[in-house]
Amino acid sequence: MEERGISVLFLPVSSTLEYLTGLSREIPNPTEDDRPGDWVSGMYLGLNAGPVIVEPRMGSAHMERQVAGKDWISELYVLGEPEDYSGVLTRLVGEMRGDSNGAIALGQRAWTNTAIDMLKAAPDAELVNAHEFLGPMRMVKDDGEREAMRRAVAVVDNAYEDILAQLRLGMTSREITWIIDRILYGHGADGVSFHTSVYIGGAASGDGNVFENTSNRVLGRDCTVAFDFGALLDGYCSDFGRTVFTGEPSEERRRVYDLVISAQAAAIEAMKDGQITAAQLDRVARSIIEDSGHGPAFIHRLGHAIGKDVHEPPFLLEGDDTLLQTGMFFTIEPSVVMDDGAFIRVEDVVMVTPEGGENLNRTGHELRVLEL
Amino acid sequence: MEERGISVLFLPVSSTLEYLTGLSREIPNPTEDDRPGDWVSGMYLGLNAGPVIVEPRMGSAHMERQVAGKDWISELYVLGEPEDYSGVLTRLVGEMRGDSNGAIALGQRAWTNTAIDMLKAAPDAELVNAHEFLGPMRMVKDDGEREAMRRAVAVVDNAYEDILAQLRLGMTSREITWIIDRILYGHGADGVSFHTSVYIGGAASGDGNVFENTSNRVLGRDCTVAFDFGALLDGYCSDFGRTVFTGEPSEERRRVYDLVISAQAAAIEAMKDGQITAAQLDRVARSIIEDSGHGPAFIHRLGHAIGKDVHEPPFLLEGDDTLLQTGMFFTIEPSVVMDDGAFIRVEDVVMVTPEGGENLNRTGHELRVLEL
Repeated sequence: MEERGISVLFLPVSSTLEYLTGLSREIPNPTEDDRPGDWVSGMYLGLNAGPVIVEPRMGSAHMERQVAGKDWISELYVLGEPEDYSGVLTRLVGEMRGDSNGAIALGQRAWTNTAIDMLKAAPDAELVNAHEFLGPMRMVKDDGEREAMRRAVAVVDNAYEDILAQLRLGMTSREITWIIDRILYGHGADGVSFHTSVYIGGAASGDGNVFENTSNRVLGRDCTVAFDFGALLDGYCSDFGRTVFTGEPSEERRRVYDLVISAQAAAIEAMKDGQITAAQLDRVARSIIEDSGHGPAFIHRLGHAIGKDVHEPPFLLEGDDTLLQTGMFFTIEPSVVMDDGAFIRVEDVVMVTPEGGENLNRTGHELRVLEL
Repeated sequence: MEERGISVLFLPVSSTLEYLTGLSREIPNPTEDDRPGDWVSGMYLGLNAGPVIVEPRMGSAHMERQVAGKDWISELYVLGEPEDYSGVLTRLVGEMRGDSNGAIALGQRAWTNTAIDMLKAAPDAELVNAHEFLGPMRMVKDDGEREAMRRAVAVVDNAYEDILAQLRLGMTSREITWIIDRILYGHGADGVSFHTSVYIGGAASGDGNVFENTSNRVLGRDCTVAFDFGALLDGYCSDFGRTVFTGEPSEERRRVYDLVISAQAAAIEAMKDGQITAAQLDRVARSIIEDSGHGPAFIHRLGHAIGKDVHEPPFLLEGDDTLLQTGMFFTIEPSVVMDDGAFIRVEDVVMVTPEGGENLNRTGHELRVLEL
């Protein structure tokens, strides 16, 4: 903060706060308003003061338990109902800032109200996005984080065969996502790292674009079923993808399946410490798919970094020139959408090492035809 | 906007944008970063320009379908990967603002990056929180919204008996939440309006605070089971609560059950157009519970407005002096935590009318003992 001329750092309850303090994130409800004072809750840190944790009264018992024993937290302030919430923010910013005129750094998901109140509390202060320097701090995982990533990845590997065993013709994609989530919890997940997705494509009957009506597509014969799910465990995320066939695939589908797997393998091999950028890695896989004529059918980035959040920078796409380093974790997830509606995709979590990528997933890449 | 001196309104994809435009919200993934450029995506509206909708390329097909046919949208701009996202924002703010020096209003959940980029694009502009004037616009529901609220409430009423029929001794609270969510979808819900909660309290064996370890408590005999769940349907939310007993309740539990139901009934009766404020309504129910000696055991607000979001202003708590008007919808949800660990709670969605509250829920309030 001193180097960057920052006088106050404010982080809402978030994965970034969890990374810096161990205070666990929450999975927010999908509502604009939730608890009174939510927009001033989080951590306030000055150069020579704090951190002070502010928490709304509803749910504060959980935070009280977490703060207990952390002597380096100078105060837990529980918000009343009602209270002058902007006044609490103004007071704390004043205390943290003292007579400094440095910038105020905010977590990227702080509310608009928070930014506005910060400008009122310190009209001369520049606002800066704390994610610009905290995001890069999270890129290279330390030894403890690497072990946590292995455990989160093991959950999906362990769950996968159980999931396949429960598939039945006639199930909808939404029913399959419920089955997946229950099995993930059964294998110890604390939660899912993102909304579980199941893409049923390429039915013989035809059923439009595989990305439309994704929840209510029905598992039939001669479909492709592309899974995309991940577990949250001990604050770290996995993200996993495989595609299975419900009926003997056509030669063209086999060819595309092999192509996607080869593109992934080439990318994994290229993930050597200090020798390739995020954008260059995307090119490695993309050029293989382009050379086969399927370039326009690979419609998304090759992957993304993963850790406490399922999607973290760097991103494997044109324009991201971050140099890969040992201990960075990425998803490698090429895919091809076929003209017959099939959607073939694979995804693993891979760590950069001096010798190339180390695939953390143990689930194999062989083509699977389910007998349903 | 003109009255308030606002030159540009920016709203992220959200319930508020859905309210104003019909463009549907999305349920965000629990990750700080998601798609490239997410922080500049949403609606840009000037006094004499726009609206322009900006959408990241991943997932843009859904937005393209929604924008089609809406001639009043001047442009849908799909973000590239990569692109100068801040540059897109700067260009659009310039186009919307023209030579005005008015304020820039931001939706309350816009990102920090958005606020910072707005200040860079228009350094002289004041930032204001658009929720301060858009929130109140949403308080009184029009006829179409009232019908939508009835439909969302009907989903939970229709689901409730099916849920009770599936309860078994030995289930965990998490297993019960899965059952509830599946049944809600089975009754037509588009989603859940918030994370489904099941509070198992007061087991004869004792099991600590009912709000600790909430996911893994086991349904046993002589428990209280307090449900809290809601459906999202056609963009509107329900929010529902009942408490059932797994064994004949003690006299004290019966007394508290009746108390909670009476406190709710008194509040519903008092919800007359123009005759009571949000804070006064909270007092109506709270004073009944206080008079019985259980005041400190009613640990939260009486309720909240509900509509497109499950939690909307006004809030039924001390300090909220909004006058109730016909067509406002509130949850009325008193509760008591008992010394024996039982947790007794009821919740209905109620509309303010000239004659008092109209309860939209049809599920009865009689004490239910489940034979499991």
